[in-house]
Amino acid sequence: MKISKPNDFLNELQNRNSEQIDVDFDRTVLGIIDEVRRLGDAALHAYTERFDGVKLASFIVSDDEFDEAYTMVSEAFCTSLAKAKERITSYHNEQKERSWFVQRENGVLLGQQVTPIERVGIYVPGGKAAYPSTVLMNAIPAKIAGVGHIAMTTPPQPDGKVNPHVLVAAKEAGVDIVYKVGGAQAIAALAYGTESIRKVLKITGPGNSYVARAKKWVFGDVAIDMIAGPSEICVLADETANAAYVAADLLSQAEHDEQAAAICVTTSSDFAEKLSVEVAEQLAVLDRFEIAGKSIESFGRIILADTLLEAIDIVNELAPEHLQIMVDNPMEKLPYIRNAGAIFIGDYSPEALGDYMAGPNHTLPTSGTAAFSSPLGVYDFMKKSSIIYYTKAEFETIADDIIVLAESEKLTGHAQSIRVRKGSVK
Amino acid sequence: MKISKPNDFLNELQNRNSEQIDVDFDRTVLGIIDEVRRLGDAALHAYTERFDGVKLASFIVSDDEFDEAYTMVSEAFCTSLAKAKERITSYHNEQKERSWFVQRENGVLLGQQVTPIERVGIYVPGGKAAYPSTVLMNAIPAKIAGVGHIAMTTPPQPDGKVNPHVLVAAKEAGVDIVYKVGGAQAIAALAYGTESIRKVLKITGPGNSYVARAKKWVFGDVAIDMIAGPSEICVLADETANAAYVAADLLSQAEHDEQAAAICVTTSSDFAEKLSVEVAEQLAVLDRFEIAGKSIESFGRIILADTLLEAIDIVNELAPEHLQIMVDNPMEKLPYIRNAGAIFIGDYSPEALGDYMAGPNHTLPTSGTAAFSSPLGVYDFMKKSSIIYYTKAEFETIADDIIVLAESEKLTGHAQSIRVRKGSVK
Repeated sequence: MKISKPNDFLNELQNRNSEQIDVDFDRTVLGIIDEVRRLGDAALHAYTERFDGVKLASFIVSDDEFDEAYTMVSEAFCTSLAKAKERITSYHNEQKERSWFVQRENGVLLGQQVTPIERVGIYVPGGKAAYPSTVLMNAIPAKIAGVGHIAMTTPPQPDGKVNPHVLVAAKEAGVDIVYKVGGAQAIAALAYGTESIRKVLKITGPGNSYVARAKKWVFGDVAIDMIAGPSEICVLADETANAAYVAADLLSQAEHDEQAAAICVTTSSDFAEKLSVEVAEQLAVLDRFEIAGKSIESFGRIILADTLLEAIDIVNELAPEHLQIMVDNPMEKLPYIRNAGAIFIGDYSPEALGDYMAGPNHTLPTSGTAAFSSPLGVYDFMKKSSIIYYTKAEFETIADDIIVLAESEKLTGHAQSIRVRKGSVK
Repeated sequence: MKISKPNDFLNELQNRNSEQIDVDFDRTVLGIIDEVRRLGDAALHAYTERFDGVKLASFIVSDDEFDEAYTMVSEAFCTSLAKAKERITSYHNEQKERSWFVQRENGVLLGQQVTPIERVGIYVPGGKAAYPSTVLMNAIPAKIAGVGHIAMTTPPQPDGKVNPHVLVAAKEAGVDIVYKVGGAQAIAALAYGTESIRKVLKITGPGNSYVARAKKWVFGDVAIDMIAGPSEICVLADETANAAYVAADLLSQAEHDEQAAAICVTTSSDFAEKLSVEVAEQLAVLDRFEIAGKSIESFGRIILADTLLEAIDIVNELAPEHLQIMVDNPMEKLPYIRNAGAIFIGDYSPEALGDYMAGPNHTLPTSGTAAFSSPLGVYDFMKKSSIIYYTKAEFETIADDIIVLAESEKLTGHAQSIRVRKGSVK
């Protein structure tokens, strides 16, 4: 694993993150969206045959298919899934926002009413691996928010089925309906509706480049969570860190995909050397060593900082999706962290704990976007309405000022709506 | 003003809202963004000459220009602006979110750290009318959030200056720097940076179709607030409502632009008739009667509902940007409202009060997007980081379950990062 000084690598990583504009690709994605809007289910059937290689009688997963899924997963899986559900629920319960109001002079009441989004759609990727944890991380906060209808969509396998772990997770998390549709066509169907698929108001969940681009295009007509880019881990370590742990954590991120970045920022060159050896040793015996190897080669880096404060500056500049603080007295470093998706503190809080079990969401802002966005949460499934109640008494004290401001903007109709009330007898 | 039954109009309005895909327009906008990314200030100078008809020595508004602006606005304007600032600040102070944590078994700590976005950019439209209120509504919540650097950008007039009301509002609201750049080129400059303009992390504020489209394209590389569509008011009225007030409020929305929608949902056909007459009378004497007239003709409607509950259903289906509740005991209807940007209660809470002075933000979700999004607020200028601190004791209780879930997803590197810690002596 390369050991380097900070600046060069920050630039390299910037290039990883910068989105390339590709008009032809957009034309393809827009073409799919347009077909689904015009032709509905017929377009979905055609794309499903073409991209997933299967002809489906119905897109809706049946009760029988759910029953079958339960017979195909282990008891251990169900037990562990239940524990994850409990911890994720317990954490997200703390996020629920309340409506509020304040009183002002003369009986004025101002506030904000917080209500659930009525219908949401969750995209869950298919393909070789399937991710039951993603189902929990999207559906549980929606459920807690009070969303009335949670739809999920995922591409069918060539045999027309859906991974049983995913189906069991959907049922346990309280998903209301599961559709066997993938890709940009699934996003279009959720955004605009078809004969089989009911339009939703917000779409969340990860996906391939077609899914990401389709989400960008439907954004505005519906809400979306975020557009996920390549993901990353950053470990802040000093000479007290355990190199075997740090190496394992870096590799757990690197095994996701070849674009993943695994970074350790450390103040200790001894530790850097030890870590480099550990990574090489553990990588050699990893099942997914090809993917992880390429990721480590391209975007794995140990960055040497002169001081802990410099190291923390580098972390804040990176704004990593996952940050592990593995230094002496790690909790005391928390107030210095300004940009990170999730902050894992100490030796026993590895990223994998957060991916499945700790409680907080594993859907996090990637590729430096933690500098301006947040983990998925209950707040993503609710929206706010301002509340304004003014009395005549308070209205009268401020009416002339509104007229002055409205007229400075040449909006005389606005001024008139104030004048018509002034000195009224009602 | 047309009086109609609900269903037809909801469909018509849907068509107003649906975004048209226009690949040529996108090519133009993407071309501008690309030029700014490649050529920086040189591109900004070229576009400013072409679109704004002015050659600028510097894009940055100077101290002298600010001083001049103060000499050009009235004392009454400054006084009213100060009152607006005070009320907007007082309300938005209530929105500030706090970091939080909870304790769990065995010394586990979980939480969320809330921090400001470091640098934001506010777009303020230029053109014939200029909107100092927009400056306050964007800059004040950013300031309260703790944003370190607030940049503002607005197109220059043909004489190379900026509307003095806008400049005074920027200074009073605590904007750090004002650039004289408009259009898609301004959005690109804020998103990617040029020699003169520092890259920001989030862009907020309204703009024309080029600005809106550019925001959609840079979204992901930076955060944006929302993509605003045509705006609307909906008044829920019964036979007790004051027709003169309702008419004035509908027209205050209609004067914004020809695409604006002004809707009254009422249970009283007598009131509907009275309102129709009032609108015609007040429209005739309005300064902006051409715009307002077209808006009322195309998208103005009085909808007759059989019962108040049916009327409320229609409101929730519309999800209006502005909702005024002008019925008997209006406060009691609040719990029935599920979708609205801002809710104005009673006779003395007209939309214009909220546009300038009441306190809550006037940047609201338009065109039915209140069903899935929220008013601009302090929360838009902050982001969250999850906090996970697990102890060895609690880690041990849950380690095997993490391994089960990771292996169900074939992520054996994740499982390995748990195993390496199990039974460790450290």
